Amino acid sequence: MITLASDFPTPYPAAMRGVICSRSDARIEEIAHDFPRQDVRATAFWLREVLPYFPPATHCVVVDPGVGTDRAAVVVEAGDHHVVAPDNGVAIPVARELAGDDFAVWEIEYEDDETASNTFHGRDVFAPGAADVHDAGGPEAVDRCVPTDDWVDLTFPEPEVLASAARGEVLVVDGFGNVVTNVPGETVADRDTVRVGGESVPVRDAYAALDPEDRLVTVGSHGNVEFAVNQGRGDEAFGLAVGDDVLLEW
Amino acid sequence: MITLASDFPTPYPAAMRGVICSRSDARIEEIAHDFPRQDVRATAFWLREVLPYFPPATHCVVVDPGVGTDRAAVVVEAGDHHVVAPDNGVAIPVARELAGDDFAVWEIEYEDDETASNTFHGRDVFAPGAADVHDAGGPEAVDRCVPTDDWVDLTFPEPEVLASAARGEVLVVDGFGNVVTNVPGETVADRDTVRVGGESVPVRDAYAALDPEDRLVTVGSHGNVEFAVNQGRGDEAFGLAVGDDVLLEW
Amino acid sequence: MITLASDFPTPYPAAMRGVICSRSDARIEEIAHDFPRQDVRATAFWLREVLPYFPPATHCVVVDPGVGTDRAAVVVEAGDHHVVAPDNGVAIPVARELAGDDFAVWEIEYEDDETASNTFHGRDVFAPGAADVHDAGGPEAVDRCVPTDDWVDLTFPEPEVLASAARGEVLVVDGFGNVVTNVPGETVADRDTVRVGGESVPVRDAYAALDPEDRLVTVGSHGNVEFAVNQGRGDEAFGLAVGDDVLLEW
Repeated sequence: MITLASDFPTPYPAAMRGVICSRSDARIEEIAHDFPRQDVRATAFWLREVLPYFPPATHCVVVDPGVGTDRAAVVVEAGDHHVVAPDNGVAIPVARELAGDDFAVWEIEYEDDETASNTFHGRDVFAPGAADVHDAGGPEAVDRCVPTDDWVDLTFPEPEVLASAARGEVLVVDGFGNVVTNVPGETVADRDTVRVGGESVPVRDAYAALDPEDRLVTVGSHGNVEFAVNQGRGDEAFGLAVGDDVLLEW
Repeated sequence: MITLASDFPTPYPAAMRGVICSRSDARIEEIAHDFPRQDVRATAFWLREVLPYFPPATHCVVVDPGVGTDRAAVVVEAGDHHVVAPDNGVAIPVARELAGDDFAVWEIEYEDDETASNTFHGRDVFAPGAADVHDAGGPEAVDRCVPTDDWVDLTFPEPEVLASAARGEVLVVDGFGNVVTNVPGETVADRDTVRVGGESVPVRDAYAALDPEDRLVTVGSHGNVEFAVNQGRGDEAFGLAVGDDVLLEW
Repeated sequence: MITLASDFPTPYPAAMRGVICSRSDARIEEIAHDFPRQDVRATAFWLREVLPYFPPATHCVVVDPGVGTDRAAVVVEAGDHHVVAPDNGVAIPVARELAGDDFAVWEIEYEDDETASNTFHGRDVFAPGAADVHDAGGPEAVDRCVPTDDWVDLTFPEPEVLASAARGEVLVVDGFGNVVTNVPGETVADRDTVRVGGESVPVRDAYAALDPEDRLVTVGSHGNVEFAVNQGRGDEAFGLAVGDDVLLEW
């Protein structure tokens, strides 16, 4: 199985599907193609949350602000999963989630420098790479894959958890408007309320525990503290965006 | 075959796909993931229009404003189709379409109360349920499925059809802006015009029977009266939204 | 394999998938369903860029402003590919790309005039047509397909390339905001700058060769001149939309 994830609008994902189908009989499953445009960290966060639910697969990921520069293409091998992606760190958090520090990185050399366009490596580099890694059973068996220790890391910022407060950062905002932070859910799990921006906000297990439009703090399906609104948008109600600092007090 | 329908933004549908692929070799086909957010009735309408075109399948549907409350998860068996969904009525109109009143409902008990998150039952309850119902051939063969007579019904409001008028309601607005009502198409099929809001509007078989931007009343592919604009948006031109009353006179 | 392309919002593509799955065991791969609404030329351009990357397949394409009029449904056979589409030219550029002038066109007669809705030929005409053409191995073996020489052509406007300038037209704008013209990339490939609207704009191989928000002229993955902005929208920065004239001077 090959999965596909990118921030590409129509019709670019289709070209990648075509290339894969022309090279491999692998089943293709979609992750998504509307990851936050060119936001490597947010995509890395979501991949860490989602890819481990798949059976062993080759995951082709293209969120690539550096397309056409000399950034490398890599295959990250973590357990039975392979992630084919630009060397910008997007594949690393999910690799750590799957395999701790026991993952390995290969660089994928271009098949043909002449024909790889400078603007669409999804089609010309990553899709063929994913098809070949999948069909060969791993980068070990693909000639143009070379082991490397020189790769770009990506980690999420650490929250600061104190006796009476936690200070963190907004990592992503999902399409519902739920604001996902790096603050661990354990910090609020047993509380009835926390203070956010000086105001008391209820902590609840479920959005629907409150009236529509009410603000809440909850622990999202990823285990982190989330700012949300029942049947509304947490980002608007709390005035928060990706990268903002957050402070919870109790 | 398992089909997937939800109102989930990225990356939540991918997590559901992953769970299904980890449990089942079933082919997955997408219905859509941009059903009107938390609009159970509109989703129920579209499922009734769409799912009967599929061969026998297990349909996993998650439009679920009550996630995390005590609403049950159900499997609705209608002919050779199974719909796995929250017990909020979303699966009932399509079940009636497929099987009249000859459908049956099972409640799906949670596999493990500890691990089901309170915010993402699509991943933790409905996707595993759909995989298991599919692979077992039906809820009868899944231990945690229990027949129930206590389920939430959903019916569409009845239009009022008089000798010289029909009064109804907007059920859904599609992405083209076409306004779909509950008024049966037969009421207008043989007319050349009807009056809407006091103004005469042509009744036509096809959008392209008029000039671009012209308003028309037509009978949609679902058999109901639709307010539309050739190459434009009927909702804007007629000033109509879901739930609004409509009056056609002739 | 059957691929699906349309400008249909939810849930219409799902109905097409259902019809295909009910008639055929073919694997289905998505091209996209958000092609520019009712823009036959832009869709024809993207199909020409994308479909040749697929292995031999039956491509079901529905961008169809003339639905419900007497425009025909056609199958265009080009090499090992078949494109099932309305007879509005949408399938012709990709056919020429695949087979030069050595392609053939069949008209698909309706299975049943009574049941084909006037508003949803995607479901009632094109999806069944694609399934039948796929399973039969080509239109030759489908009774209701009839060879025809009377079909709608579509060509892209020719650019005017002079010694010191090129004059062309915007063919499409992609979802990144990149403005794709009909001017061949060779005209700018070896230049360092060109003048656009009297201002000098750098010509670069890759978006990332400049600072974020900087404007550039580049050669897109399709081989044509593109107006772009690194990590921004070229359409807004250059004030260009589909159909606009463009003039490059050097």
